Formats: sequence, structure tokens, C-alpha cells
Amino acid sequence: MLNVAILGASGYTGAELLRLLLNHPKVAIRALTAERHAGKPYAQVFPQFAMLDLPDLQKIDTLDWSGIDFVFCALPHGTTQPIIAALPSHVRVVDLSADFRLETPEAYEAVYGAPHEQPALLKDAVYGLSEIEREAISKARLVANPGCYPTGAQLPLIPLLAKDLIDADSLIIDSKSGATGAGRSPKEGLLFCEVSDGIHAYGIGTHRHGPEIDQGLSKAAGRDLRVRFTPHLMPMSRGILSTIYVTMKPGVGLHDLRQALESRYEGEAFVHVLADGQAPQTRHVRGTNHVLISLHPDRNANQAILVSAEDNLVKGASGQAIQNMNIMMGYQETLGLTLTAQFP
Amino acid sequence: MLNVAILGASGYTGAELLRLLLNHPKVAIRALTAERHAGKPYAQVFPQFAMLDLPDLQKIDTLDWSGIDFVFCALPHGTTQPIIAALPSHVRVVDLSADFRLETPEAYEAVYGAPHEQPALLKDAVYGLSEIEREAISKARLVANPGCYPTGAQLPLIPLLAKDLIDADSLIIDSKSGATGAGRSPKEGLLFCEVSDGIHAYGIGTHRHGPEIDQGLSKAAGRDLRVRFTPHLMPMSRGILSTIYVTMKPGVGLHDLRQALESRYEGEAFVHVLADGQAPQTRHVRGTNHVLISLHPDRNANQAILVSAEDNLVKGASGQAIQNMNIMMGYQETLGLTLTAQFP
Amino acid sequence: MLNVAILGASGYTGAELLRLLLNHPKVAIRALTAERHAGKPYAQVFPQFAMLDLPDLQKIDTLDWSGIDFVFCALPHGTTQPIIAALPSHVRVVDLSADFRLETPEAYEAVYGAPHEQPALLKDAVYGLSEIEREAISKARLVANPGCYPTGAQLPLIPLLAKDLIDADSLIIDSKSGATGAGRSPKEGLLFCEVSDGIHAYGIGTHRHGPEIDQGLSKAAGRDLRVRFTPHLMPMSRGILSTIYVTMKPGVGLHDLRQALESRYEGEAFVHVLADGQAPQTRHVRGTNHVLISLHPDRNANQAILVSAEDNLVKGASGQAIQNMNIMMGYQETLGLTLTAQFP
Amino acid sequence: MLNVAILGASGYTGAELLRLLLNHPKVAIRALTAERHAGKPYAQVFPQFAMLDLPDLQKIDTLDWSGIDFVFCALPHGTTQPIIAALPSHVRVVDLSADFRLETPEAYEAVYGAPHEQPALLKDAVYGLSEIEREAISKARLVANPGCYPTGAQLPLIPLLAKDLIDADSLIIDSKSGATGAGRSPKEGLLFCEVSDGIHAYGIGTHRHGPEIDQGLSKAAGRDLRVRFTPHLMPMSRGILSTIYVTMKPGVGLHDLRQALESRYEGEAFVHVLADGQAPQTRHVRGTNHVLISLHPDRNANQAILVSAEDNLVKGASGQAIQNMNIMMGYQETLGLTLTAQFP
Repeated sequence: MLNVAILGASGYTGAELLRLLLNHPKVAIRALTAERHAGKPYAQVFPQFAMLDLPDLQKIDTLDWSGIDFVFCALPHGTTQPIIAALPSHVRVVDLSADFRLETPEAYEAVYGAPHEQPALLKDAVYGLSEIEREAISKARLVANPGCYPTGAQLPLIPLLAKDLIDADSLIIDSKSGATGAGRSPKEGLLFCEVSDGIHAYGIGTHRHGPEIDQGLSKAAGRDLRVRFTPHLMPMSRGILSTIYVTMKPGVGLHDLRQALESRYEGEAFVHVLADGQAPQTRHVRGTNHVLISLHPDRNANQAILVSAEDNLVKGASGQAIQNMNIMMGYQETLGLTLTAQFP
Repeated sequence: MLNVAILGASGYTGAELLRLLLNHPKVAIRALTAERHAGKPYAQVFPQFAMLDLPDLQKIDTLDWSGIDFVFCALPHGTTQPIIAALPSHVRVVDLSADFRLETPEAYEAVYGAPHEQPALLKDAVYGLSEIEREAISKARLVANPGCYPTGAQLPLIPLLAKDLIDADSLIIDSKSGATGAGRSPKEGLLFCEVSDGIHAYGIGTHRHGPEIDQGLSKAAGRDLRVRFTPHLMPMSRGILSTIYVTMKPGVGLHDLRQALESRYEGEAFVHVLADGQAPQTRHVRGTNHVLISLHPDRNANQAILVSAEDNLVKGASGQAIQNMNIMMGYQETLGLTLTAQFP
Repeated sequence: MLNVAILGASGYTGAELLRLLLNHPKVAIRALTAERHAGKPYAQVFPQFAMLDLPDLQKIDTLDWSGIDFVFCALPHGTTQPIIAALPSHVRVVDLSADFRLETPEAYEAVYGAPHEQPALLKDAVYGLSEIEREAISKARLVANPGCYPTGAQLPLIPLLAKDLIDADSLIIDSKSGATGAGRSPKEGLLFCEVSDGIHAYGIGTHRHGPEIDQGLSKAAGRDLRVRFTPHLMPMSRGILSTIYVTMKPGVGLHDLRQALESRYEGEAFVHVLADGQAPQTRHVRGTNHVLISLHPDRNANQAILVSAEDNLVKGASGQAIQNMNIMMGYQETLGLTLTAQFP
Repeated sequence: MLNVAILGASGYTGAELLRLLLNHPKVAIRALTAERHAGKPYAQVFPQFAMLDLPDLQKIDTLDWSGIDFVFCALPHGTTQPIIAALPSHVRVVDLSADFRLETPEAYEAVYGAPHEQPALLKDAVYGLSEIEREAISKARLVANPGCYPTGAQLPLIPLLAKDLIDADSLIIDSKSGATGAGRSPKEGLLFCEVSDGIHAYGIGTHRHGPEIDQGLSKAAGRDLRVRFTPHLMPMSRGILSTIYVTMKPGVGLHDLRQALESRYEGEAFVHVLADGQAPQTRHVRGTNHVLISLHPDRNANQAILVSAEDNLVKGASGQAIQNMNIMMGYQETLGLTLTAQFP
């Protein structure tokens, strides 16, 4: 059994890691940390776990690392750099924060407004978009788990850019997210009455996931690009739907896009290209690690629309983190991730 | 007092017409029709009206037209052509269906798949986008009330196209709608459990409001264009948020777009251009006839993002219908439409 | 015009007072206070008012009372006693907090855990359940507006207890409330993801509205009683549905209950007894000052079930406050309160 | 492997059976029926199963029973009597409809308004409230799976009645249900816009689950009783919360109730009595077979309040059906049912 600790277990991604790992045949949960809630039984912050035997919450600095093999770090952005740097070297890590996602200290500082504190560690970190970076992930000690929006945006676009089928300068990603993406800290704008029965865009043109998406797509395209990306907050708990507008290169048709996606994701357990005429719903991946991708002709001949659906807490966070752990440990990639969506 | 009849009063737009007209100082409700429910008290189909004294529902062919001055026709698409053709000539009409929105019989047939039955009437119909067609509306006998999506899409774009500030060939409109837009007829896909806690796109590249949007924008641009338009169904009762991606013409900046919108809508009671840094929420126009428009710089210098918010049942249907009635009758345009949004 | 100030205008009840008063023909809004937000335009805390010309938010102690005739006090429980005591004597007040609802300082201290600071003022305050205390309200300077739950619980029961038709010792009130009842202060338990798609009871056997309900019902029954009252929080923004279980006195039938309610509320604009076979929905009073009451036979012959529906922000708070203002000022009682429910 | 068929697989309980059984180590899904959808791939009615290899939907009469060991019958109430009667005798059955729940043909006819067609089969059927009827279930060929409301109502009350701790004549069960309980057939009252943002009671004093609850509780009490039971429909997909009001027998205290429940359910995997001061939420059992029960003192000394939470689709339907299958087959009772709740 792999001895696992979850740092920052009192947030939504922490609880989701636990829900999924409890169904994983090779994992034993050894430690759960939460600074503010240290000393409490876990069920006091998430009562759905009351019928299980789990370690109490503790502070990170009281953790006995000798019994830990693997760490999921689900701490707030900007706080994980010193914590990961201080981990004993035998421990492998998937970090769910944004701290190690951008590849250079310069890029990090430009987006997050502070110098990166651990540039050496950053250099060794591997970006954990599982289906794209599987080889590097398998050898990494530190995997930077992708952001929720970047996961749903990059998976449909990388194969198309890699094969030079679409114009890299006209990419538009319009994403709609559930409220778990904003975390569990109480804020007026996240109250039930402020989120229900309505929708709004936020971070328009400025959201920090924009540069993260650029980084991955630029690599695929072989040159720098900047997507147009707009996130929206809507009344659902889980899920991101991304509607993606692309312009095809001369001579390219929708069929070529389909072929590129299908051949790239053939045999993948979690990425599925839907048949013609189908469109994905976030409900159909709720609670699962699946990403659904559909392709649609536009009324304008050289243009196409793609739609991707994921669960932001699973493939967009904790599920992909476990998928990455499976890759790192040489386990079957689907372990702990075989559930069907809970719909309705 | 203006003697008003509502045809098709048992649907959501019918109930919304009634809710608003009951607050209108110059209107008396004289007749309400609903074929299937004829003979019932109105409160049997919409109990919220139980404390009011309203005419019972009746069949259209039992209606005594001698006491009616004005008709709102809230019947299903495709059914209103013979009904409006049969109305006595003294009656003025706002039709909320799609039957008279496209200007030529050819365009109608191309989109709705059947020949138009009343081409002469179609020729006289005026498209009722109030702020744009006010002059023609004031003289019309038959006003074709715009679709919900086209209202929120055209108002932000027409001034920009009219001033040639943006590229007419790269317009993308990504719209998110509440479920009232789909009507009250029972369908599996509209059940609570199928709509709540999720989102999906539908009619991708094929929705009938695409050509309606094209028609208005082409007129503003002075040449034919085809927008890229994707509607989404999401768990809210009312509201449409449209996120609109535009490419600015060389030399044009965001400030020019703002100036064009502000000068075009200066003094308008229902169209509001938000200040820099603000973004609209559908919640803030819930139950009102207002449209909120915001402008945002993109990370790409020559591009911009606009967002519009409306209530699909009010400015997107019944409210604009009443605004058009006010224009047609020479009333103050805001009569019956002065309520503030019900939020939360 | 009556010159009105709203103290505590940045909460949900403050915004709802404003929404309704803006539709009131005899009221001019002269001042809006909010300590934390002083100096801001009101639309910065509630953007739906952006298109209106309203006074900026200010601190209470900067308010010029010479131009104010009437005050709505929408401040947190426990904070209003010194504030109301300091108001100039020419100002009449409706207080929406709980501070003046319980009639004796002893009762207040027993429930709220602190001595009442203004016992003299408490003695003069009138409990503002409009339909029951209309006469006293009309002469009061200070009206204590009832709690949301007590309004929906007392209106159906007072007439039955007053006529001695039901057993005063077996009353059960099971209430389901929307989330606006919990206010706008950010708390983990009120986040969208914590409230949506589920329900729970809270304050079981201990909620502070229990004694408030007891007070009114005891008065009607002519002796002390203690109801069994359980509130629940559920995913809706507005509304309280109360399901009420009563045991009829020997010889009493459902018809007697109906007669007592119908005769008591005959001619009332806002309290409606539904016909046999009908049951109220909170949706049908959303945004209105109406209370709907239904009566149902139980399978046990001597027992009956009543259901009441109200909007907790309107009849349960701001609407009833305006109704009380109308009574105090000698206005027509329905002024500003004639809207039909916004459904869907 | 146990070869399983699901009859009526196109409804919500059918899909939930499948979701759970796919996670069951001893079950192979061999056939799925749905009369209207026969011939379609299952993913066409529930797209969340698209990535799995499942039998196509077929008509019941085309099913080859030779390869089937066990049947879940998830057909509409009133339709299953001839179908189950026609099953080959080697097949064991859990019927999720109401057809075999009431123990006598007389009781069935009184409640369902038609004579029972298979009285002999009815006599052999065992009521499948797993924790209460485990012994009989283990030997049964036909188990009648309990209704969703009766499950959450009976589990807390049976131990208290069996020990004569509470008054059998004053039981009140106020239940709040999610919309999956109403099924997937399109009806106006189940549309998103009719269910969201509100609540209402239905079947007040007449719901068919009342007599089913009576039957189980009467057996526990040792004499006939009639509960007062009110169901409510509210905007959540899954879950039932039941608030239960009891009067304690003289000399009995809350502690005695707790002791009775804890000793009765000690060691049970799915029934949990919460600690003092805790109250259950439906969210915390979402997607699981757990029932949470809490006890609360009332302000009236001889009275108490209990709250139970369950997922109506799991412990209230498909989960308990699988639990019963496990009991019937001698499997470990928790097989396929070990998931933690999906919250948020």
C-alpha cells in the first residue's frame, strides 16, 4: 500500500481527493492536514466522512514524514513553495496549486505578481496534463497539477495545433464553471443567493489561467500564442463546459479535426471524442475523471466549434492528481477513477 | 384605457405580459386566450394571479374583437400567420413569435422550412428592436417582436458595425440562457433533474436565431455577414448572458467602441453601458426590461470582449413587446416597465 | 411625500425595502446608511439600482434628521436599541430587527441572552403583525416588525386559537426557508455549494423565533402555550413554506377551521385562504406581500394540516414593514405592494 | 458472477441500479429492458454510460432468461404484477415498484384502486426494509423494495415503537424530497422552471406511502396506527429529509430513545445515529446507501424531534435493492455500496 498524506484537506479539492482515494485499492490515507482545523476529526469539516475511520486533522509541521510515501498538496496558490521545498526527498508530490505550473520564474512573476521562491524546484517540476505529459510525469518527483480551465481547454486544442490544422491566432475559449472552482472560503459573491439563478463573466481578459493555457498551446503550436479566454461563474456545484471557436487552415475540414482528435486520444480511458451530432453536458461527467469533446461545423465554412466538458474537481483537480499519482507509481492509470457519473 | 387581448396566455411569455401589463396605467386586460385551457379561470394555469380579477381563458375564435384595440400574440412559432391575417383591421398587433421577424418569404422558408403563408403581411411587418427601429415601430400596425437571443446580441453590435469599428466577419456570440426560453411544454430535457446542476450547448451552428441576428447586423454593417452563435441552456429560470468577441478595425481602440455605444444609447431608458471594470450579471436585470452592456480589453491588442445581460422573458420577449406597444400608441416608453430587478 | 431613511441599507432586507418603496407613490428616499460601506454609491453594493438616482450610503451619525419623517431600521439583531433610542422624536419607526418584538425585558433577556437596554421604549413598541394589530400599529411611533417565520406561523393559527377550535398544546410548525433569511454576511454554511441540492434542519427546538411565535399564539389562546417549531434551510432565494399540524377540539371539523380563517381574513388584501384541494407554493408569492393559506383533512379524523406560503423578504420582512408604514401614515394599505409574483 | 437483468432500465432508478452495480465485484449486467427505447444503445437514454460496454436496450419479451439469475424490476407501479408472475422460477427478484409492498390484496386495492392480480405471489413477497427484515429477505424469491419515503420514516421509528417508548397515535412525519422521486416522464409540474427556487407540499393526507408507513409501524407497535405524513417537492435532484415529531411515553427521556436506536442499529453499515447536537443534511448521503438519524429535545419536556436523511434513489430505491440482493445471495451486505457521498 502507498502511504499518502493530503496537505490542505479541509478544502473542496482535499475532500474530493479523499472521496476518490478511499476507492483506490493501493492507497492508505495516513495523514490529513489543515492549519485552522488542526486537532479536529475530519468529519467535523466534512460530515459525509463520519462513517469512516480517518486520521484527525493536524498541522503540517506535526506530520511524521517517515511513514509517508506520497503527498497531495491542496493548499492555496502562493503558499506551497516553501512547503514543498521542505518535504523530505523520499516523498513524491502532486501539487494542486498554481505554484509550479508556469515553467519559468519570469512567467510566474508576471502572472502572480511575486518572485518565485523556489526556482530550482520549479525547473524540475513537470506539468501534469496526464494524456500529454505522461512520459515526463512517470519520472517526476514533483508534478504540477493543471488548472481546471486549462485542462478542458488544452485537451481539445493541443492535437489540432500540433498538426497545424487551425489558426493559432484566433482561438477563443468561452468557459462556464461551477462554484466549487472558487473554493470554500466564505465570500459575499459566493453565497447561495448571489450565485443561484444567474450567470456572470469574471476575470475577463485577465484570468490567471489564460497564460497557463497559452503555455501549453504555444508548445503544441511551436510558437507563442495568446488565446482569448473568458471564464463564467454559474449555479452548479461541479463542472466546466468550454465552448471553443477555431478557424481552420485552408484546405482543412471538420473531418480532419475529428481524425486528429480521435487518433491522438485513441485508447485513452478518460478523453472521449463524441460522435457527430452529439454535444456534451457537464452532468454526464459529474464526479468522474472523464473529459468529453465534441466537434461541430459552423455556418461559416472555414470555421468550427468544439465543446469540452469536465468535472472541475475531478479531471480539473483531484481526479487528474490521482491519475498522475498512478502514472508516477506505475499503477494502472484508472485505479480509483472508474466510477460512472452520478446523474441525475 | 387601451383594451388589450393576449393570445396564447397560458405560456410563460403570456404570464409575463400579464404581470407587467397589470402594472401599466393605460391598459385594461379584456381577453386572454388558450385553446387547450379554454373555459378555465386564468389562475388555474398560473396560480400567482388568483387574487386578481381577470377574464377567463377562451378560444381565439370566441373572442369579440369589437372591444379590443391591441393584441399581443404569444403563440407558438409557425402558428400565428393565419391568426394575425384574420384579425380585424382596427387592431394593432405585437407578435412575439418568429413568424414575421425575417424580412423576406425566402429567408423565412430557408430557416423555418415551410413557405410563408402571408407574404403581404410580412412585407408590412416591422422588426421590433425598439431602440433601433423606434420610428418604424411607431407607425406599424404589426410589429414582429425580436427573439430573446437576437435582442441581447444585436444591441451591443449594431452601433459598432454602423460606425465600421469592428470586423464584420469575425463576430462570435456565446450565449447562456435560462430555461424559460424553452417554454412550458413538458419535455424530458427540460425536467428539473435534467437542467439543474449542469450546462450544455445546443443548436450549435444551426439555431434559428442565427439568421435573425445576421439580418439585423448585416443591415447595420451595410453588407451580408454571418455571425458565429452558440446558445447554451443552464439552470436559471430567467436571463441571457451573451459574451461577444470582436476584432477591432486597424486604428480603433476600446475607447472608440465605448464612445459609439454610449452616444448611440445616450438617454435610452433600458440600455445601459457599464463603467470600465464592471461586468453585468443576469441577476441584476431579472424581471426588468433593462439590457446591460460592458466592454473589456482583451490580452490581444486589437481585440475586445463585450458582455450583455438581459431577462429573456422581459427585454427578450414580453417587456420589449410592451415597450413596442408604448411606442406604437405614443405613450411614454417606460410605462409599465419601471420596476427594479428582484435580486436576490 | 413622506421623507424616508433606511438604516442598514446594504443587507437583503434593505435592498428589498428600496425595491418596493421605489414603486410607492407617496415615498421619497432621502437617506441610506451602511456603516462599512459609507461613502459608496448604493449601486456598488446592489448593482441592480445603477440606473436610478439614489442617495449615497452614509454612516448613521452623519444623517441630517431634520429632513426625515420616517425610518426603516434594517440593522442586525441586538444593535438597534441605542440607535432607535437616539432618534429624534418626530421620526416614526419600523424596526425590522428582533429587538422590540418580545413584549417584556424578561422575555427578551431569556431569548437573546442580554438585558434589554431600552425597556421604556420596549413598552411603547407595537408588534407589527399587520392584520392582527392594525389598530395599535396605526397609533404607534415604534413598530417592531415580526420575524419571517412568526408571520407565516401566526396568521393561520391565531384565528383558530382565538375561536378555541384547536388544541393549543399540540401545535407543530415545520418551516422551510430560502437562504435570504440568513442574510448577506459571508459564512461557509451559506455558500452556494453548501446550500444547493440539499436540505437540513437547524436550530431544532432552540430557534429564537419559537418564543416569538409562542407570544402571539398565547395571546390568541388566552393562555401560555409552546409550539413545536422546526426551521429548515433549503436551496431557494426567497420564500417560507410552513406545514402546520393541528388537533381539532371535539366536535370541530375542517369546515369550522375554514370558516374561522375566511371570516377573519375577509377583505384582507394580503392574506388568502385557498379553496379546497389547493396547496400553496412559495413561487406563487415570490416578490409579493401575499400570504397563502390552505387547509387539508388528515387521515385521522380529528386532525388537520394547514400550509402557509410567504416571501420571507416581503411579507416576512420589508413588505410587511411598508404595510405597517402605510397603516401608521393612514395611507391605503396596499400602496407600493400591488405587484404580482414573478413566476417563473 | 451473478447474471443480472434490469427491467425498466430507462428510468432514474434503472440508471442508478446500473451506476452502482457496475461497481459491484460479483455482478455481470446481462440485459437491460425499456419498451419504448428497445433497440437503442443504453447511452442514448443516459449518455453518462457512453464509455462502457453495455447490452443494448430490448423489450422484455425478447429477453433470453436462460442466462439470467437475478432481476431488478424498475417498472412503473401497477405494471409489474403480470411481468413478475411470468418470470421463470429460477430467477430471484427485487421489485422496486409498489406492487408487492402492501401485505394483503385488500390493502393493495384500498390504496391503489384496483384488485391485486397476483395474490399468491403477494403472499410470498417479503418487504425489503433490509435492516428490519434481513432474515426473511435472505430466504425470499421476491423482495418488494420499500418506497423512498417509507424507508426514511420507518427506520427511526420502528425501534422506538418496538420498545413502546413513544405514543403511537401522535406520529408526524414531514418529508422533503428531491425531484428524481417523481421520475423521468415529462410533466409540466416537473419542469425546471416549476421546481426551482420554491417548495410545495403535495398529496397532503392522501399520499400512497402513508399506508405503507402505517403497515411497518403498526407491526412494530403491535397494533394499528395511522401516521400523519406530508411529502414536499423541493429543488434538489436527490435526497429526502424527514422531520419526525414524537411524544414520549411517561417516564421516557431522549436518552432512552437514543439508546433504543443505537442498540438496534449497532454494527449496521448503513444506518447511523448522529451524536447529540448534530443534524443530518441530505447532501451528506448523496449517492450513498446511508441513512443518518438525529435526535433532538423539544422545548416541551415530553416531546422529541427526530430527523432522518437518505438519498431517495439509493437507500430509498436502487441502493437498498442491491443491499437486498446481497442479502438474498449471501454476499457481504456492503458490496457495491461503499462509496462516500459526492459533496459538494
